[in-house]
Order: sequence, then C-alpha cells, then structure tokens
Amino acid sequence: MNQLVISADSHAGADLLDYRPYLESRLHDEFDAWAKGYVNPFADLQAPEATRNWDSDRRLRELEEDGIVAEVLFPNTIAPFFPMANLTAPHPAPGEYERLAAGLRAHNRWMADFCAQAPGRRAGVAQIMLNDVDDAVEEIRWAHAAGLTGGVLVPGVPPGASVPPLHSEVYDPIWRTCAELGMPVNHHGGTGAPGLEPNPVSLAVFIVEVSWYAHRALWHLIFGGVFERHPDLRFVLTEQGSDWIPGVLKTLDYYYSRFRSGDATAEAKFGGPAASRLSLKPSEYFARNCYVGATFMKPSETPLRHEIGVERLMWGSDFPHDEGTFPYSREALRRTFHDVPAEEKTAILAGNAARVYGFDLDALRPHADRVGPSEEELAQPLTELPEGATSPVFNLETIIRAW
Amino acid sequence: MNQLVISADSHAGADLLDYRPYLESRLHDEFDAWAKGYVNPFADLQAPEATRNWDSDRRLRELEEDGIVAEVLFPNTIAPFFPMANLTAPHPAPGEYERLAAGLRAHNRWMADFCAQAPGRRAGVAQIMLNDVDDAVEEIRWAHAAGLTGGVLVPGVPPGASVPPLHSEVYDPIWRTCAELGMPVNHHGGTGAPGLEPNPVSLAVFIVEVSWYAHRALWHLIFGGVFERHPDLRFVLTEQGSDWIPGVLKTLDYYYSRFRSGDATAEAKFGGPAASRLSLKPSEYFARNCYVGATFMKPSETPLRHEIGVERLMWGSDFPHDEGTFPYSREALRRTFHDVPAEEKTAILAGNAARVYGFDLDALRPHADRVGPSEEELAQPLTELPEGATSPVFNLETIIRAW
Repeated sequence: MNQLVISADSHAGADLLDYRPYLESRLHDEFDAWAKGYVNPFADLQAPEATRNWDSDRRLRELEEDGIVAEVLFPNTIAPFFPMANLTAPHPAPGEYERLAAGLRAHNRWMADFCAQAPGRRAGVAQIMLNDVDDAVEEIRWAHAAGLTGGVLVPGVPPGASVPPLHSEVYDPIWRTCAELGMPVNHHGGTGAPGLEPNPVSLAVFIVEVSWYAHRALWHLIFGGVFERHPDLRFVLTEQGSDWIPGVLKTLDYYYSRFRSGDATAEAKFGGPAASRLSLKPSEYFARNCYVGATFMKPSETPLRHEIGVERLMWGSDFPHDEGTFPYSREALRRTFHDVPAEEKTAILAGNAARVYGFDLDALRPHADRVGPSEEELAQPLTELPEGATSPVFNLETIIRAW
Repeated sequence: MNQLVISADSHAGADLLDYRPYLESRLHDEFDAWAKGYVNPFADLQAPEATRNWDSDRRLRELEEDGIVAEVLFPNTIAPFFPMANLTAPHPAPGEYERLAAGLRAHNRWMADFCAQAPGRRAGVAQIMLNDVDDAVEEIRWAHAAGLTGGVLVPGVPPGASVPPLHSEVYDPIWRTCAELGMPVNHHGGTGAPGLEPNPVSLAVFIVEVSWYAHRALWHLIFGGVFERHPDLRFVLTEQGSDWIPGVLKTLDYYYSRFRSGDATAEAKFGGPAASRLSLKPSEYFARNCYVGATFMKPSETPLRHEIGVERLMWGSDFPHDEGTFPYSREALRRTFHDVPAEEKTAILAGNAARVYGFDLDALRPHADRVGPSEEELAQPLTELPEGATSPVFNLETIIRAW
C-alpha cells in the first residue's frame, strides 16, 4: 500500500495584483497607487517558479509528482500594503493597522477560494494581527465559516513590541474563539524576533537566535494559563525544529516544580502566583494541547520522536521554498524515516495532520494510491543525496518576509 | 593536604552612605538629597546580615569558616543614584548617565580599598556602562592601576536597548584595552533581559528566559569577531549555569560551518560575511578565550566538565546571597565534586580562578592549610543536605537589582 503523505507546512499566496478583487473596494484606489510603486525584493517571487504559489493546477501536479496528496497552506507572497512581511504579520503602528488588516483579509479571502479549487486537499491558514483583538476574533469566525481548516497563524511578539506579549490575558478572546471553533493556532518559525540591523554580524546573530524567539510562544502560553483555561485548544509550532523540545520541556517542568514548591526562595516568589493557577505540568500541557509542524525533519530528529510524542509530530515539505524538500520529498522521506515503524511513520506523515487540520484520510486514500510513495520505497535507506537537492535549513527568505 | 578553594563568584559593596567619601565631591549635595529620599527595597540589604557586604573582618571570618580562602567580588549593594540596579549597570538615558557613571566610579573606588584590606584574597570587579566607550576605557585603565584584578563587569544589552548590541564594533576599544591590560571581561547572569511587567505571568516567564539573555553575549562576541581581533582576551560567563554550553557550542559550530559553506543558500548569504572573518570555529574561540564562573555547580553539571573544558570551569559560593552555598560550602563541594579526580577538582575550585584573576596560589596555601576542607572530607559523598541549606537556584534578588 502506498504511503499517504500530507505536508503540514506549505506556503501559498496570490500574485500581488490578483489580491485586488479580494480587497475591499474602498481601498482599490489606494492599493493601485501603492502597488504601482512597490518593488518586490524577493527573487523567488519574481522568477517563473513563483506561479507555484497561486497556479492551482501546477501546484497539484508538482505536489503529486512529489508524492504528496494534501497540504496545510501558510502564506508566502506579498499581501496588499505589506512593505516586506507577509509570512507572519507585524504589529504595525496605529496609523498603519487599518490598511494592513485589510491586506490580510484580502489574503484570507483569496486563500479560501484557492482551497476550494482542490476540495479536501488544502487546509488554508488564516492570518490575523494582534493590534485589535475584536478584529482578530471576527476574522477567525469568518475564516472558520469560510472553511479555512488550517486555523489561524498567530504572529510572535518581539521583546519591546507595541502590542502586549503573547502570554497577556488581553488575547484570551482569540484563544477562546479558536478553542470553541476547533481552529488550530499555528506559530511559524521566523516570527517574534526583534528587528535587525543590515550589517553582517547582526545577520549572523539573527540566524542563531531567530528560532528561540519563535519557541518563546510555548512557555508564554503555558505560563499564561492559556491551555489551563482552554483545554481543547490545539497549538502548533511550525518550522522551528523539533530537537529543542525535550530539553525545553524538562526546563519548564523544573521551573514549574520550583515555582510550586511553596518555599520562600525568590524563585518561588517570582513564579509561584502564575504556576499556582496551573493544574498540569508544562510537559503535560504540551502532551495535551501542542503539536509540532516539524517540516523537513532531519534523521537526527526521529530518535527523539517518543520523547516529543509520535502523535504530536507532523512532517512538511515547505513547498515551494528552496530549502524545502521538493522535488525530492520521496528521497527526504527515505532519508529520515526509513527505519521508523510503519504505524509511527503514518502518524507523522499523515495521521496527525489529518486529526489537527481535519483532513479526511478516506477521501485522500485514492490519491495516495495513485501518487504516494510505496511502503517498500520509503523503507529503503537513502545512500546518496540527489544531485541538486538543497539542504533542509531554516527558511531565511521567509524570515526576511517576517519583518 | 587541604583543598585550596577560591570563590569565583561572590558579591560585595558598601552601605549606601559609605560610598559618599568615594564620590566626587561636586556631587555630594546632590547625593545627600537623593540618599535622603531613597528607600532600599531589598530585605537582605537591610537585615543585620547586610554587613557581610562591607565588613572586611566579618567577611574574612565567615569565608574561612566556610573553607574558602579568596574570592572574586562582583557588586551587590546600591551605588549612588541607582534607583534599583547595581549588579549590572543599566543603559541610562543621556540625562541620567553622568551621575550614574559617577556612582559606579564611587563603587569601584570603594572596591579597590576593600580589596586592599585583605591583600591577595580579593579580586574586585570594576563596573562600567556602555553609553560612553571613552569613559569606559578610562575607567578600565583606572581599575587596572588600582589593582582591581577581577577585571571588568560588562552589562548585557537587551533587544531594543538604547545602546548598540554587544557585537557592535563601537565597543572594540573596551575589548582592546582589557586584552592589553590582561583584565578579564565578566558577564554575570541576570543581565541583558528586557524589562519586565509587574504581573505574575511576566515574572514566571522572566525566570524561564533570563539566563538565555545572558548567554547571548557569547555568540555576540564570537560572531562580532571580538576573539578574532583580540586573541588574548579572557571572557567569563558567570552565574548562568554551565549545562547549556555544550549544546550551544554545537549549534554555533553548525551555523559557522553553514555560513562558511560557500553555497548560495540564504543562510550562507546571511551569515557568510561575518563568519568569513573568523579563522576559528566558535567552539575553538570558546576553548581559547572563554571561562565559566559556574558558581554553585549541581552534581548534574560535573559530567559535562570535559565537554566544557576542565580548565574553563570555576566554582563560586555566591556569598553572601541566600541561594549561595554559605555556610554549607563544604557540604556543597562534597555533594558536587566527591567523585571528581583531585587534579580536576583543584582546577575548578582554585587553579582556573588563579590563572584568570591572578591569585597567587603559593601565597594562599598557608590559609588553605589553616581553613580549607581536607581532601578526605571532599571525597565523601553527601548523604543528606544540611538542615537549613537553601537550594542552589538562580539569584533572583540579584536579577531584580539588574533592572
């Protein structure tokens, strides 16, 4: 039987001008003027390959050639009025918020249509900003009604940002709404880092630090009591590695036990009041509420799968990014999973994503029978990397977009 | 033979009004007015125990009762004009800088006298701020001439601070001067974290994150080329744990190799220009230039000593802090080092600190013969913790002082 493969981390978006029909018409004139002066700085969004982002037929064809039958769709291209960023929304100044929020709404509406072009094969992720929680809640309700089963992409909050940190109770209506509607909350690598100066050392240091800034959301939500108040909420940490998780969970559990120790140390005094509201240990919230969009997993990550939780991990191809596994996903899967038992492989490659994002595995099965890699193929170790395969490294073009 | 023990992490400072004679007289009136209205918020600086910070005889006596013969002295009390912080200097607004810098100079001058009261037993650490590099260099030269062999305490720079990040070349005169004079550069845990809101969740999250913000200095200096340009510089990471080091060095080496790979990935493009200036791998700079003031090491840290480098690690009691090992340092040493070979134990408890901070081990030997724990005592495992012993946890009172 062929393996059914879902990519839990893919990217899509419209070509800039194609967002226009999805943009509120009161903004068309402003958009036209803005778009005329806009120069897209991203090579991969100008090249012929860029059509992968929005050409539904091309996308399905290339996906299937790569052995994949369905995907979760994060953003990728430039939304209206976004100077740089789209992958994760920024926290704009009040004067900028209104038109950027409209730009994201246009993307979300385009995404709903794009998903509808391949029913059951695409789980689109809706974007929100954190500046106005009522707006965010309204957009989440719209996205749910519009069938964006990918849930919501929540941007990170860098230290010193103009909006409160993610652990703040002001965001509770967002978590409550997502829990109520069963919308997963996604947090994608590249987000939450402070601004960056354009000099060589800042750029190098940024690469070293950027994943940590995305990881922060995990303990912000845990100690913020978000999973305590919303036991059904599903939170997904995507494209920020997975090998950090066991160590961080141990650290968080350590602090939790110190905070709850009831002794008079300064540590308990500091952390006690927050921890006393939590009925579970951090690792227990993780095991109940959290998932990992582990994207192009390295062979060094699979030995940690039981510590992280086999039922929490979701592979992704990162299509159409250069550093993703396309068009060598079959080889990438062999490389990382050849020695993983079939049942666990199926959970990481399809079952978990189906559970989190609502894919119907029975409906996808005929596609897998047609295009999926065979179990025998995936059980073969990869002896050499395909020529032309890029390294599965962090998506830096994406990060740049996140500023 | 008794073990010679040096604490590479202790704290001292004057009672507030005793800084007055060390303060430039033009500021005396301003100081008197400020001091009158100042209320010290720290319980341990008001209690009878506070005299440990400045009473030379009491300090020596308690140190010796604890089996220790010499110590490196970081700050602890409130320097003139400091609203909260003293342990690590802040980055004040321009209007505040002048008098805070004068406050630190008063502390440094007091510290030189305090060290002179016990020659060879105290290595005082001089404080600087980063707002004015010329001032900092002048103070380092003064500190060297005044015999402050503890070197310099460099404050961390939180994201978004008003001064450039630690990797900035504007600080090169500081590193150059320290290298030239053989002054160690110390970076103490609690520094470099962004501000903190006074609510329970912020406090808990702060504890989880604060050490990472101190660790950042390591890769900022490495990728900033500081150790490349100043091969003789000695950099000490104090009271921020040691168990994170092997993992971080692996990560930094990984990025370095990616940055140097010469390929066209975005990662190489980002990090390449900085890494191409570095002739060594991050772990090689660490092994040449860096030391760890590991303070109250836990038994779980000694198995990592070869990965970190036995010749890099320095134990400390954190006297007079509550969470330090006093008055149970003998027990703490047995607990952590009973199964560490004598030669390695001696390096971590004395030899490395002597090399970094210029202690004369021969001159200290008679004191160790008189008060040090015997080798036999230290070789005995600790079967139960002394009643009243506090847990060796991170120094949070200290952190509060660092804001």
